Amino acid sequence: MKATNPAAPFTLGQLAELLGARCVGEAALSIDGVNGLDEAGPGELTFFSNLHYRDRLATTKASAVILKEEALGCFVPGEGRGALVVDDPYLAFARASALFHPAPVFAPGIDPRAIVEPGAEVDEAATVMACAYVGAGARVGPGAVIFPFTFVGEGARVGPGAILYPGVVVRERCAIGAGSILQPGVAIGGDGFGFAFDKSVPCHFKIPQAGVVEIGRDVEIGANSAIDRATLGVTRIGDGTKIDNLVQVGHNVAVGPLSILCGQVGIAGSSTLGKGVVCGGQVGLGNHLKVCDGARIGPKAGVMADVTEPGDYLGAPIVSSREFMRQQAAQRRLPDALKAIQRLERRVAELEKRLEASLEKDKGGD
Amino acid sequence: MKATNPAAPFTLGQLAELLGARCVGEAALSIDGVNGLDEAGPGELTFFSNLHYRDRLATTKASAVILKEEALGCFVPGEGRGALVVDDPYLAFARASALFHPAPVFAPGIDPRAIVEPGAEVDEAATVMACAYVGAGARVGPGAVIFPFTFVGEGARVGPGAILYPGVVVRERCAIGAGSILQPGVAIGGDGFGFAFDKSVPCHFKIPQAGVVEIGRDVEIGANSAIDRATLGVTRIGDGTKIDNLVQVGHNVAVGPLSILCGQVGIAGSSTLGKGVVCGGQVGLGNHLKVCDGARIGPKAGVMADVTEPGDYLGAPIVSSREFMRQQAAQRRLPDALKAIQRLERRVAELEKRLEASLEKDKGGD
Amino acid sequence: MKATNPAAPFTLGQLAELLGARCVGEAALSIDGVNGLDEAGPGELTFFSNLHYRDRLATTKASAVILKEEALGCFVPGEGRGALVVDDPYLAFARASALFHPAPVFAPGIDPRAIVEPGAEVDEAATVMACAYVGAGARVGPGAVIFPFTFVGEGARVGPGAILYPGVVVRERCAIGAGSILQPGVAIGGDGFGFAFDKSVPCHFKIPQAGVVEIGRDVEIGANSAIDRATLGVTRIGDGTKIDNLVQVGHNVAVGPLSILCGQVGIAGSSTLGKGVVCGGQVGLGNHLKVCDGARIGPKAGVMADVTEPGDYLGAPIVSSREFMRQQAAQRRLPDALKAIQRLERRVAELEKRLEASLEKDKGGD
Repeated sequence: MKATNPAAPFTLGQLAELLGARCVGEAALSIDGVNGLDEAGPGELTFFSNLHYRDRLATTKASAVILKEEALGCFVPGEGRGALVVDDPYLAFARASALFHPAPVFAPGIDPRAIVEPGAEVDEAATVMACAYVGAGARVGPGAVIFPFTFVGEGARVGPGAILYPGVVVRERCAIGAGSILQPGVAIGGDGFGFAFDKSVPCHFKIPQAGVVEIGRDVEIGANSAIDRATLGVTRIGDGTKIDNLVQVGHNVAVGPLSILCGQVGIAGSSTLGKGVVCGGQVGLGNHLKVCDGARIGPKAGVMADVTEPGDYLGAPIVSSREFMRQQAAQRRLPDALKAIQRLERRVAELEKRLEASLEKDKGGD
Repeated sequence: MKATNPAAPFTLGQLAELLGARCVGEAALSIDGVNGLDEAGPGELTFFSNLHYRDRLATTKASAVILKEEALGCFVPGEGRGALVVDDPYLAFARASALFHPAPVFAPGIDPRAIVEPGAEVDEAATVMACAYVGAGARVGPGAVIFPFTFVGEGARVGPGAILYPGVVVRERCAIGAGSILQPGVAIGGDGFGFAFDKSVPCHFKIPQAGVVEIGRDVEIGANSAIDRATLGVTRIGDGTKIDNLVQVGHNVAVGPLSILCGQVGIAGSSTLGKGVVCGGQVGLGNHLKVCDGARIGPKAGVMADVTEPGDYLGAPIVSSREFMRQQAAQRRLPDALKAIQRLERRVAELEKRLEASLEKDKGGD
Repeated sequence: MKATNPAAPFTLGQLAELLGARCVGEAALSIDGVNGLDEAGPGELTFFSNLHYRDRLATTKASAVILKEEALGCFVPGEGRGALVVDDPYLAFARASALFHPAPVFAPGIDPRAIVEPGAEVDEAATVMACAYVGAGARVGPGAVIFPFTFVGEGARVGPGAILYPGVVVRERCAIGAGSILQPGVAIGGDGFGFAFDKSVPCHFKIPQAGVVEIGRDVEIGANSAIDRATLGVTRIGDGTKIDNLVQVGHNVAVGPLSILCGQVGIAGSSTLGKGVVCGGQVGLGNHLKVCDGARIGPKAGVMADVTEPGDYLGAPIVSSREFMRQQAAQRRLPDALKAIQRLERRVAELEKRLEASLEKDKGGD
């Protein structure tokens, strides 16, 4: 299943054309792979984007480097070497890597050992592997891939080109958008966490979780993450949003398009995140909160109130990153400050005593 | 699998009777569903419990509202509208929702594509779906439901009416109580995390995890949560306790009845939680701790010592919520306080200088 | 599947020999199990390692105790009781427990209901259970055990004696070392979380995750943990490292041998942990960091910079445990310190006023 492009190797000139880059040095150079600046060897293409690390550019063994115009001065082409000049080396490197590692292609068709219940509609260009399960009334679009041990519930929909790796669960009536990728063990549509305490029993009375989950197009969800179905209505993940492993998204949450949720983020019920929001690893958000477009919440932060201004935030509860740094610096100075207060108290007491004595003396002298 | 009640719609009068509410306005009003205050439309029933949001009550398009006696003044019945007066609107709404969305009913029987090993006892009123696995010596009670790709290990027990969604693992000899619900991907009975360092090898020598897990009645466990088996003895989740997604419960932990563990909570080995304990999202508890009945630990808190008094706690390490607020307020004042200290130092130095000069002068004047 | 040793019960003398301990008291004592100090009853062996709890040693009902030489004074043998004297009672107890609870033995062979794709190589001494999946080109070593609903992808390798519990996913080309244990729901080889923002679309362009995961020998990974494959190259878990439940390990991370990652730890991409590193529960590590051998990061800590010295760390961002304690103590004194500052301000103002008045008077007196 490792896909390698039969068109490889490419010449540096071909890559320049495919990536829309300016070729510097030997256009005929043969490139057979990509690698990191320190790891790359002869025949490989790497990238350089941070002038801070120019020493590492000087010592790379890569045959070719993707870099910005302003970094060209740090690069010594030499024989059998070359460079590709672009505006965004990281993006160009990602595209180059995709040329060498194209997405795997799966043979379409339903494996006879798969279980497809009557009434399910599986497009003939979809791949349903052995030991996959597609429930009654479910629809699987063309090019979609369902791996073994993956469950597509009754009436669920899997859009064209979506990939559901092994052990994924998409419960009844939930929908996965076109081209979205669910890593192993993702749970879509588990019941939201909603109970009303009934002291007469006593028990936590289960509130029916009658809603669904709708995952947009081009979404990725990391291994063992869980997105709960809405109590009523829809839990929604916007188009192009990327979610890392072990993330928890509660019932009725709406995450806007192009957002990023890093590993182990937790979002409690009914919160709304805007467009392009970034949550660092282990961030927690309370329920019924609104986070505006472009807010970037740093790792481990705790959000307990609406975020109404774009920008960088840190801390639990969060403050602006600038304020957080100020508080941290103050915090580090605190033990010394406490000593300073004690010294001041002694000096003030001494002053009081001396002033008193002086006044007494003056009085006596009167 | 979306269950709707064939008895619906109900009249408002019928709902009043079913919920034990007082009907205000048109008893003949036909209600065909429930929804939130802002989302509800004509024909729908909503609820109102927080006088703070009375504006939203004024603008709701719902035909009927569940509310408390004291909120009745904020509600204008008008034509084709009504209200249901109760003591606990949230609970009544939950019950109303359950009338419109009754739990799904599954056809009993063992799907021929399921695997039930010889020696397993599956009640004839249980549902074992295609691709479910029930090991030798396991027992599955009447009304229990085992979804595809769910594993019930050797000698495990699944109580009457329990629901195990897809991808659940219940390892050998563990027990799930009556009516309990395990969302997708829950892992019950993984080995506890216990090792003794053997420097002679060196290795972390694996301590046998020979115990089990016992989940009580009416427990719910969220998607991809993990409850480890005891080293020796039992890891226990009390009756009526509700656990959210991605929660970690270590070996030999005992969680009392009617407790609430929100998303991504982690409880280390051998800790004991009392009755009605609440842990907010991402709370962490150390090992060998005791948390008393009625303790409520706020989100992201870290518990490093026994909690002996009921009440609200926050912070890492935790303090009472009141103390936490006090510390946070102090924290915010810290940068200014540091400046105040510097100003004081200057003023005290100035005072010292002036007093010294004055005394010198006095002396000189003598 | 509960394994009990047919050789049990043992005499205390036999246990002394098997454990390399010195037997004190009745060597002929029959021991039929092990248990904790408080839980053990007649016929059972327990252990005692912390002189702090000597009261509990005095009241244990165990027939025999494993202890250190220096604790022997606290132990009253009496009739029908005995002790085993060792250097490391906890390790000896772990070994004793392993004598009573030997690892379960599984019948070798491929269950006819398992799916083993053509081209997979399964050793004849391996166990592949019903509903397990072994992909084309995968290799499964002798003594390895693959449970139901566990997926071994194309070209993946499972070493001799490795145990993969139900619901495990090992994606294509990843490798599990000899004797390693994967608890239920572990996801190995999900795509790393790597995207390059392309503002021209806009989209988060997916960087191919073309690398693999290599899990060393004698590793244990807890339920529902996720270890991502490398972008290029290898994500590596060192020999003898133990990982608890719900842990996230990002792409291209390298964890050294004999390390411990407790529950819900998260490690972002490309970080490197040394040998014998310990991360407490819910610790988070940023990306591209280095943590040196022997660093011990306390629970809930956040690591945002390289750790270059072994020792104990706490806090977010981390400081040495000693410094953390100092900061916490200072923090607790902060509210009082703020009041002290206000008092000082009043006293200094008063001093200034009085000194001013005194000087005025002196001037007037001139």
